[in-house]
Amino acid sequence: MEHAQRFRVMLSCPDRRGIVAELSRHLADLGATVVAAAQFTAPLSGHFFMRYEVMADGVELTEEGLDSGLRAGMADLLQQADSSLLVRSAQFRPRVALLASKASHCVVDVLQRWRTGELDCDIVCVIANHPHIAENAGWFKVPFHHVDFKDQPKEAAFGAIDGLLDEYDVDVTVLARFMQVFPDDLAHKRAGAMINIHHSFLPSFAGARPYDQAHARGVKLVGATCHYVTPDLDEGPIIDQEVLRISHRDTPADLRRKGRLCEREALARGLRLHIEDRVFVRGNRTVIFD
Amino acid sequence: MEHAQRFRVMLSCPDRRGIVAELSRHLADLGATVVAAAQFTAPLSGHFFMRYEVMADGVELTEEGLDSGLRAGMADLLQQADSSLLVRSAQFRPRVALLASKASHCVVDVLQRWRTGELDCDIVCVIANHPHIAENAGWFKVPFHHVDFKDQPKEAAFGAIDGLLDEYDVDVTVLARFMQVFPDDLAHKRAGAMINIHHSFLPSFAGARPYDQAHARGVKLVGATCHYVTPDLDEGPIIDQEVLRISHRDTPADLRRKGRLCEREALARGLRLHIEDRVFVRGNRTVIFD
Amino acid sequence: MEHAQRFRVMLSCPDRRGIVAELSRHLADLGATVVAAAQFTAPLSGHFFMRYEVMADGVELTEEGLDSGLRAGMADLLQQADSSLLVRSAQFRPRVALLASKASHCVVDVLQRWRTGELDCDIVCVIANHPHIAENAGWFKVPFHHVDFKDQPKEAAFGAIDGLLDEYDVDVTVLARFMQVFPDDLAHKRAGAMINIHHSFLPSFAGARPYDQAHARGVKLVGATCHYVTPDLDEGPIIDQEVLRISHRDTPADLRRKGRLCEREALARGLRLHIEDRVFVRGNRTVIFD
Amino acid sequence: MEHAQRFRVMLSCPDRRGIVAELSRHLADLGATVVAAAQFTAPLSGHFFMRYEVMADGVELTEEGLDSGLRAGMADLLQQADSSLLVRSAQFRPRVALLASKASHCVVDVLQRWRTGELDCDIVCVIANHPHIAENAGWFKVPFHHVDFKDQPKEAAFGAIDGLLDEYDVDVTVLARFMQVFPDDLAHKRAGAMINIHHSFLPSFAGARPYDQAHARGVKLVGATCHYVTPDLDEGPIIDQEVLRISHRDTPADLRRKGRLCEREALARGLRLHIEDRVFVRGNRTVIFD
Repeated sequence: MEHAQRFRVMLSCPDRRGIVAELSRHLADLGATVVAAAQFTAPLSGHFFMRYEVMADGVELTEEGLDSGLRAGMADLLQQADSSLLVRSAQFRPRVALLASKASHCVVDVLQRWRTGELDCDIVCVIANHPHIAENAGWFKVPFHHVDFKDQPKEAAFGAIDGLLDEYDVDVTVLARFMQVFPDDLAHKRAGAMINIHHSFLPSFAGARPYDQAHARGVKLVGATCHYVTPDLDEGPIIDQEVLRISHRDTPADLRRKGRLCEREALARGLRLHIEDRVFVRGNRTVIFD
Repeated sequence: MEHAQRFRVMLSCPDRRGIVAELSRHLADLGATVVAAAQFTAPLSGHFFMRYEVMADGVELTEEGLDSGLRAGMADLLQQADSSLLVRSAQFRPRVALLASKASHCVVDVLQRWRTGELDCDIVCVIANHPHIAENAGWFKVPFHHVDFKDQPKEAAFGAIDGLLDEYDVDVTVLARFMQVFPDDLAHKRAGAMINIHHSFLPSFAGARPYDQAHARGVKLVGATCHYVTPDLDEGPIIDQEVLRISHRDTPADLRRKGRLCEREALARGLRLHIEDRVFVRGNRTVIFD
Repeated sequence: MEHAQRFRVMLSCPDRRGIVAELSRHLADLGATVVAAAQFTAPLSGHFFMRYEVMADGVELTEEGLDSGLRAGMADLLQQADSSLLVRSAQFRPRVALLASKASHCVVDVLQRWRTGELDCDIVCVIANHPHIAENAGWFKVPFHHVDFKDQPKEAAFGAIDGLLDEYDVDVTVLARFMQVFPDDLAHKRAGAMINIHHSFLPSFAGARPYDQAHARGVKLVGATCHYVTPDLDEGPIIDQEVLRISHRDTPADLRRKGRLCEREALARGLRLHIEDRVFVRGNRTVIFD
Repeated sequence: MEHAQRFRVMLSCPDRRGIVAELSRHLADLGATVVAAAQFTAPLSGHFFMRYEVMADGVELTEEGLDSGLRAGMADLLQQADSSLLVRSAQFRPRVALLASKASHCVVDVLQRWRTGELDCDIVCVIANHPHIAENAGWFKVPFHHVDFKDQPKEAAFGAIDGLLDEYDVDVTVLARFMQVFPDDLAHKRAGAMINIHHSFLPSFAGARPYDQAHARGVKLVGATCHYVTPDLDEGPIIDQEVLRISHRDTPADLRRKGRLCEREALARGLRLHIEDRVFVRGNRTVIFD
């Protein structure tokens, strides 16, 4: 098994002298050899971000062993404010839920890429407030749940969604053109683990009906933005964006069609970056080691 | 002379039956054969836009002759509200003025493309509120004028610019990173004949310091927008836009550097479209036959 | 019905004086008003290409009536060598067959766009030499046929395919990553009506295993090419191409993954252009009015 | 001085356990703290590539001191075949020569970016076989040399160029649309230090007149390729590539115009990557840490 002894180590902390040497030494002491590395120190804040991919070298390593070994060795560094460490087996497959509304293009695209082996995760359920999405989930034999937003209060509907996400023990929630606004408390609860695709090149055309806004303004490119969900709608940290050229011949319907291509590309790339543990979030910015 | 007997015909009017046939017939009657055609009817407004390139075929044609012949033949159509006709010899070389401030990249790029034969216009002067732009103008032997914005009131400075544009009999004014806001009356006076390059992907980051805004928001693409100047700052009809991918490693200075590439591309393309009479403006949207 | 009285007129012939006026006049006489027009005369060959979209204006029009009316009116012009006229109702929905082998991404993408209403055609069957594609066809309730290429001679297999295409009365055959090379006679038989997606940016890496070739050469972009099938493999007229940036980190498997995105985009765009009658073929070049 | 105590460390060697830890430890011992890191191990060859940016931390560091300290500490590793180490002060400004022929767009673009502060190098001379390039060099006050290729044998002309490059003590030679083919011995002499811009998307249209080849083939994108010069013409390791969309309307002259944009972008990016020591070459592939 290729990934059996491969791990990701993500460290984020205030910069200071010798972090790389310290981390490298501890890894070597634990029997882990670095196969890929990326590091960045933010020039203004002086914050340090590092991602390593390491392999066990002649020893047996576990996620827990590596994690506790590193935490013991770098206790000083990690007890600083704003420090974090993540150790994750490359075998880890996060449990992903897809949420949708009426449009199916993002759900189908994520499922198809997943089926093709492009996304190292388990898609454990599809939830939608429109029942016809059941068909798309069925193609890929993924459990489907319809949550009604018409005949019950929003609170009850979101309660049902939250219950399902808990029940399925979901690691990552993907709003794949889910058109209901998550309440603040649920956005908080899953901060850093809920990804949305917004159908505009943010911050342009935040809010409703962005393609009609774009048509009215006469822009020459449409776009889409994949971002983490935060209580501030459309203000979450951006993971990826995509744009396509348009012309005066494109009606709002054409913009929606071209926009769908942007949406599925930006969402798929953003989701892939997230599940491969390549994204650090700091404030409303992201550091991405792709 | 290849272009001697070549003309552009641009017609814009409310749509009605048979316009194409009518215009084509009049052109044939006048001895002009169509070598390129593009037409578009806006689905919502029903407005009709057409651009023809025609050549004299066995007769002597002049811009004036073709213009008056068409106006006579289509008087009915042209006396409608919102109708316009432009007949222009392909030999016409508009007189262009470049306005700049501190940054030279757009001025140099336009001048270099002009020198290389990419822009069918005469660049008749460069005007800047920073005197060092004189050197760049000098490279291309284009007259330079420094207009001071520090030691005189803005009104006086803009009066001086307006005087220069009149004196040089300028057809097209290009704000090539000119950082002073044109007063409304001058923007009105040259409506449809003054092009600006804004250093963001509008409507994102309108206003000052867009690259710092973009860095603060953490977007993954920077851009630039070439648009006609209107009294509503940053709201004019968009001719072209360009974007480039950025990452967390890019500082605001890097964004400015990458943005400069977007700026010069979008400006050069927009200017080229304008001087080749390929742009119709209607409301705050453009119809472009490229 | 919006398109009931809308037609496409495609004319291609050696250029001469007054074609536009002549065609426009005949259309007006027949009661058709032009709603969109595009025209191009090739500078070297002097060949003339025109595409009109016209609507009936106050009269009843049929495809046959318009076609025969135009042919009668322009008999002189159309009897020249290299002349052709196509009149097509905008209601026409070509019958499309999809051919696939092992990979499903192009088939699923075309079917999903078709389902979403992006492609104005009828996909009448899916044919593959790998039986598992049946599942994908089934999702969209499109008849599926497995044609075996292992246990019978190639000739027999292609005979079976040809029979199916005839039986389904197919207008457009799409090789959606179909990895068997069509024999010359069948390529001839469906010339101009069979579209292939090649998994490289042609003419780079023609032939087998292009992503491995691309990796070995160390290029920084991968691409895909949508083209008409001709007896000269990989040499057919190109409709569209797409590229994506890659890096040294991308393995041949990553190139295949990124390449799949190029393939499905280029194929979907090329197919859309073809079924909307926007493509002229002349020699091994295309003229496209998008 | 911001860069006074900043260094780049580039290490390339066969992979083995603990290289990162070893290098990190030696750097820490020498008083250097890592501010940026990138590492890559080629999956097939198992070759290891690492680039660090380090800063002196509380000690005085010199390029020589760091270099000799690292070589002493890692003597074992570095005496393996295919191992190399480069230590370079971030203050180092390589001496760059630009070679041109008739076209000025690449020369002017590199010089203008250099003037704007985008390229951390010293452009010490411009050499061309067409004398009019003198004017462009003069704008930027860079010494110019005309080397005649008409009235003397090629060997003599290249001898003169080689002499100039030696005389100016040039670190990087940039063939900025220089249309003479370097003899093998000179290509060898400056291997890894001579950059060319080829006016096609290699490997498509290698050889002469690529834009005419591209027009004849009817491709839908044109491109340019920045690569290291090797004795195998057009086969050198690729640093960067750029493409732009074209259409049937574009004549070979339009392709050249659009191609010029690709050329100057690909060349400027490639040169920047090279002078910032971000490119490893291995075989005919590059590893680039941007």
